Amino acid sequence: MTRAIMHGCNGKMGQVITGLCKEDPDIEIVAGIDVSNHIKNEYPVYQSLWDCKEEADVIIDFASAQAADVLIDYSVQKEIPVVICTTGLSEEQIERIEAAAQKTAVLRSANMSMGINILMDLLKKAAKVLAPAGFDMEIVEKHHNQKVDAPSGTALALADAMNNALEENYEYKYDRSQERKKREKYEIGIQAVRGGNIVGEHEVIFAGTDEVIEFKHTAYSKAIFGKGAIEAAKFLAGKPAGFYDMSDVIQSADR
Amino acid sequence: MTRAIMHGCNGKMGQVITGLCKEDPDIEIVAGIDVSNHIKNEYPVYQSLWDCKEEADVIIDFASAQAADVLIDYSVQKEIPVVICTTGLSEEQIERIEAAAQKTAVLRSANMSMGINILMDLLKKAAKVLAPAGFDMEIVEKHHNQKVDAPSGTALALADAMNNALEENYEYKYDRSQERKKREKYEIGIQAVRGGNIVGEHEVIFAGTDEVIEFKHTAYSKAIFGKGAIEAAKFLAGKPAGFYDMSDVIQSADR
Amino acid sequence: MTRAIMHGCNGKMGQVITGLCKEDPDIEIVAGIDVSNHIKNEYPVYQSLWDCKEEADVIIDFASAQAADVLIDYSVQKEIPVVICTTGLSEEQIERIEAAAQKTAVLRSANMSMGINILMDLLKKAAKVLAPAGFDMEIVEKHHNQKVDAPSGTALALADAMNNALEENYEYKYDRSQERKKREKYEIGIQAVRGGNIVGEHEVIFAGTDEVIEFKHTAYSKAIFGKGAIEAAKFLAGKPAGFYDMSDVIQSADR
Amino acid sequence: MTRAIMHGCNGKMGQVITGLCKEDPDIEIVAGIDVSNHIKNEYPVYQSLWDCKEEADVIIDFASAQAADVLIDYSVQKEIPVVICTTGLSEEQIERIEAAAQKTAVLRSANMSMGINILMDLLKKAAKVLAPAGFDMEIVEKHHNQKVDAPSGTALALADAMNNALEENYEYKYDRSQERKKREKYEIGIQAVRGGNIVGEHEVIFAGTDEVIEFKHTAYSKAIFGKGAIEAAKFLAGKPAGFYDMSDVIQSADR
Repeated sequence: MTRAIMHGCNGKMGQVITGLCKEDPDIEIVAGIDVSNHIKNEYPVYQSLWDCKEEADVIIDFASAQAADVLIDYSVQKEIPVVICTTGLSEEQIERIEAAAQKTAVLRSANMSMGINILMDLLKKAAKVLAPAGFDMEIVEKHHNQKVDAPSGTALALADAMNNALEENYEYKYDRSQERKKREKYEIGIQAVRGGNIVGEHEVIFAGTDEVIEFKHTAYSKAIFGKGAIEAAKFLAGKPAGFYDMSDVIQSADR
Repeated sequence: MTRAIMHGCNGKMGQVITGLCKEDPDIEIVAGIDVSNHIKNEYPVYQSLWDCKEEADVIIDFASAQAADVLIDYSVQKEIPVVICTTGLSEEQIERIEAAAQKTAVLRSANMSMGINILMDLLKKAAKVLAPAGFDMEIVEKHHNQKVDAPSGTALALADAMNNALEENYEYKYDRSQERKKREKYEIGIQAVRGGNIVGEHEVIFAGTDEVIEFKHTAYSKAIFGKGAIEAAKFLAGKPAGFYDMSDVIQSADR
Repeated sequence: MTRAIMHGCNGKMGQVITGLCKEDPDIEIVAGIDVSNHIKNEYPVYQSLWDCKEEADVIIDFASAQAADVLIDYSVQKEIPVVICTTGLSEEQIERIEAAAQKTAVLRSANMSMGINILMDLLKKAAKVLAPAGFDMEIVEKHHNQKVDAPSGTALALADAMNNALEENYEYKYDRSQERKKREKYEIGIQAVRGGNIVGEHEVIFAGTDEVIEFKHTAYSKAIFGKGAIEAAKFLAGKPAGFYDMSDVIQSADR
Repeated sequence: MTRAIMHGCNGKMGQVITGLCKEDPDIEIVAGIDVSNHIKNEYPVYQSLWDCKEEADVIIDFASAQAADVLIDYSVQKEIPVVICTTGLSEEQIERIEAAAQKTAVLRSANMSMGINILMDLLKKAAKVLAPAGFDMEIVEKHHNQKVDAPSGTALALADAMNNALEENYEYKYDRSQERKKREKYEIGIQAVRGGNIVGEHEVIFAGTDEVIEFKHTAYSKAIFGKGAIEAAKFLAGKPAGFYDMSDVIQSADR
């Protein structure tokens, strides 16, 4: 049984994880940390990590970027593994996290969903066989109409995974409407569709001669990021210092 | 039985149509026109329309843009209906075609496939109901890696069909990667994917709150453009002077 | 502003509709009816319709089948329009509903989502053009692994819509594994996929020679049925006696 | 440069392979075998393998099942590797092929396309991670309306690949319409769609909680089976006796 501290327990994702942990016999939230205290949880909630009296094996972080500094200090000093899911961190904070990984186990990923990370792993293998065989790679991602960035960080992470698995360097192509020319061999088209309240859909296309292979991930709710964070927490508890990401969690599941 | 002259009979599409007509009891090619004479056909082939001795009800044109001028003169003077499938016509030629439509029946469309034109018709109806209900419209098209233009003329024709059916004017958005902002309500995203030898795929997405409706057309071979041209020829034979397009052919099928 | 009574207000869908109405300036729930009273609503809640003191323009029903008898009596006697979304009604109850429609406006549909009903409308048109042109029709639906019936009622309703629009009678084919034979022309294959917690996906395929047209509806949450019920209620308020369904709501939106 | 004998050179696939080899600098057809001699090829054609005078490194077989017996005898006696693509072999013939593999290199696969075999390889990895994580596996395949068997051999091969990769034994479910019950955990639904002249589409769905991962292979022409056979021939030339399949060809490409 993994004992976890939920950092940012009263935010949306903190509550999702709280709900998921109730149904999971292998993990328990022993304490929550949040500046706001408007929600009644079954575990004690503290304003600051330093007030927390409970012993824990891991911290799950879905708080704000401002809270990350205290989080890193605490994790290093207490040598407690930490799963960092907060986004929008500064360059400086990311450097501090990397430094922290020399003292304690730290896990951070572009996308916390198990499905996306399994897909990423398979795409590396697919790219290594299909790209040399002449298949062209393209990505289409779909998200809700409120999303301000395009393409999604996950689409870029998928492209990077394929790119890094290959010997040549592929350029990313976001727009084909401004020129009249044939597709270049060493490029990966990445197209962003926006509409409605689509949670997130990523489709990777390998187009060859007379055959096409497609890989598609569809998210139906943000709960999948919470589930991934819980799996990451179970994995990270007890691990030695180091920098981990979701691919390590996937690998450990694929004995 | 419709008697047709195949203009450009020894080109790739001319031969596709020749093959399709052999299996269709409702149409017969009575003569072919082509500057090249390297293929043996079951019908007489002439270098120029003016040499043709056979009587016909309609001309199907899949020749080159250069040949279009003679074609228009001939159609007008003989008052013979003509299905013009040649692409790459000049502005001047298009004007001459429109003028010709006052003397004889002329049919011309962005895409000759029955399927695409049926889809276009349904999309107008869909847009009229779904756009006011708050659904966002997006298009993704996929074509082979040798195609130089993007997005495809067909994708633009689909967008125009929806746009014209609506009261507001929608702008087309080809690239979302250069700015950080939410989707505008009155825009239609059009994304182009390129790879392998994909013949042509068009997907129109209506994304609403908690539901998405998609319409998708997949072409497996260019023969569908030949089939559409044949249906257009059967429809056009005997029609009075005027400018027609594939939507008229569709409507006549949908009694 | 439409004044509605929410029949079954404390059930799951009753609460979804309660939430949606709060954000909709064109409708207000003036009273709720529920045998259970464990939820605090902003409107008065009565155990029985007959206790209700508020004046209303329409009743939205998402209660249980047992409650339907009182509902029908009340609607007829008060001549108040009623949107019946409850499923599992007996043959006898359905007959009583049809009889009630001679006294008041009654609306009932196999699927309350606007999207599915718009799709159904378009499919009738598509089938009328595509089936005579030789396209084969097939349906694939996907639902969660807890669903006990297959194919879904909505898949059958889509098939019926196409079937009724056509002159020939098409048979439904659920399994092709038990025989070795070619596809029959006048059949519609209906396949059911089950897995995970998929809310509901319906794909209708028109497969022709060298081209395929697909229509797909994806539901991301059951809230779409609530939204449809609200649109139906707004439509039904003030309507004369008669039996209506969602296609009437769609048509009224498509001026 | 691999020197190949094309067994069944004047059949449809024999001619496809003949065309593909002309454009491939790494393989040459040095002789063809066919009972019919109505086509003029650039290589000598013999009625029987035993008449063939040319030296070759490998035989590619796309002839009829009747011709398989002579083929096996010849391959064993000459110790020449053979790629067997003929379908409809008898149990006895399959046993003879397996025996022949002790004397020479023999390659045989359910589906000769590189794409399908790469997909099969990835699906084993996917199943091993996703099935234990609670994802349900389902397959939908689509083929033309003339196909008499359902589901396709390839769909079954994909299901077998996943099944063999997992500890539990999964049952295949072809029809859900005859019973009212929830999906069983250890089953793989396999659904067959038939329509138009669809060459072949296979979609494997992993449906989890709030996320779905799909893998899809689309064939646009039967040429992909010819291409796969050519890759298999190049791989097999010079290999020691043994029974090989397309997964060996894929693995060798994925150094």
